[in-house]
Amino acid sequence: MSGLSIGILGGTGDQGKGLARRFAMAGLRVVIGSRSAERAGEAADSIGAGASGATNSEVAAGCDIVIVAVPYDGHKALLESLTTELAGKIVVDCVNPLAFDKQGAYALPVAEGSAAQQAAAVLPDSRVVAAFHHVSAVLLMDPAVEKVDLDVLVLGDDREATDTVRALADVIPGVRGVYGGRLRNAFQVEALTANMISINRRYKAHAGLRITDV
Amino acid sequence: MSGLSIGILGGTGDQGKGLARRFAMAGLRVVIGSRSAERAGEAADSIGAGASGATNSEVAAGCDIVIVAVPYDGHKALLESLTTELAGKIVVDCVNPLAFDKQGAYALPVAEGSAAQQAAAVLPDSRVVAAFHHVSAVLLMDPAVEKVDLDVLVLGDDREATDTVRALADVIPGVRGVYGGRLRNAFQVEALTANMISINRRYKAHAGLRITDV
Repeated sequence: MSGLSIGILGGTGDQGKGLARRFAMAGLRVVIGSRSAERAGEAADSIGAGASGATNSEVAAGCDIVIVAVPYDGHKALLESLTTELAGKIVVDCVNPLAFDKQGAYALPVAEGSAAQQAAAVLPDSRVVAAFHHVSAVLLMDPAVEKVDLDVLVLGDDREATDTVRALADVIPGVRGVYGGRLRNAFQVEALTANMISINRRYKAHAGLRITDV
Repeated sequence: MSGLSIGILGGTGDQGKGLARRFAMAGLRVVIGSRSAERAGEAADSIGAGASGATNSEVAAGCDIVIVAVPYDGHKALLESLTTELAGKIVVDCVNPLAFDKQGAYALPVAEGSAAQQAAAVLPDSRVVAAFHHVSAVLLMDPAVEKVDLDVLVLGDDREATDTVRALADVIPGVRGVYGGRLRNAFQVEALTANMISINRRYKAHAGLRITDV
């Protein structure tokens, strides 16, 4: 891991910023991406630990592993604008297509099957992996939380790419990357975030998953 | 729990028989259901612990809590044939709509949204709860396994019914029932069984879920 640079598209959002913070704390070179280089730089400064900021396009072109942490709304359009920059790269999609109403969160249907499959359809020359769906931004950002009690399910059809992303998950203290199946089974992992939100509400928790017997 | 009788439709299958065994071992009155009363009786004898057998129709009419553990194929038709018997009862759907090919398991689409929502649509007068999707039949049946390392996600729109089913899960040593959201978020919990199968394959495990911080 130590030689690789990690870019985070949409890294000014809670999930992206939390991941950026933990990766930077682990000593990785981290670049936060945003439409505005200025906002990306501000987000990088706010988390410290040596992260820097750049435009999403610069991040996509310049980093070895690119994490997609944008809202589902702008997901497809952003990736369509970066197909050239992302060719050949490991693209880690952690987008959860969810909507909310009075009864809480629920999963949105995705024509391609899942956000990750949408990314794979838009980026045929990239190595798309799905992961980091259930991380709690609150825990990732909390200086009092040294270890995050969570298994990250890592899905994809490219063994070397999923192994790399599992190793990336492992750099966050407490977190373990666990292979979770092929990309065609990504929808339920993304959608399960709605259930985690229901659990958090009911139990006043920051719930995470652990896989037993592994 | 102690006064309640538990019926298991399709209780001659692996998942149903495993649950029947654990509930009977916990001292609950358990009746295994099958199309054939004879086969139901044989399954009950094979697990011992005082379980008995009856036809699916007798089980539906006679038990307080009725677990649906049939293959997805016959799910809708069976429930349509038992609407009268199941009226007013807690019906616990643990059906996983999955298919298999060379690449492993994958989730089937369900017109009603999920097997549990299909049950709720067919049984408007029952109290449908979704639970027990990820139990390992192997572990439930293994006499060497005293405790099963698993949280059972319990989903439903009827608070009293989900609380009852959480308590039912709790009678299996090691297992904990955790509220997992409304019925509209059941699809991803059912479908996640495909991922658990992928995990079992990759890691040669009988994987289960635990929810952290709860």
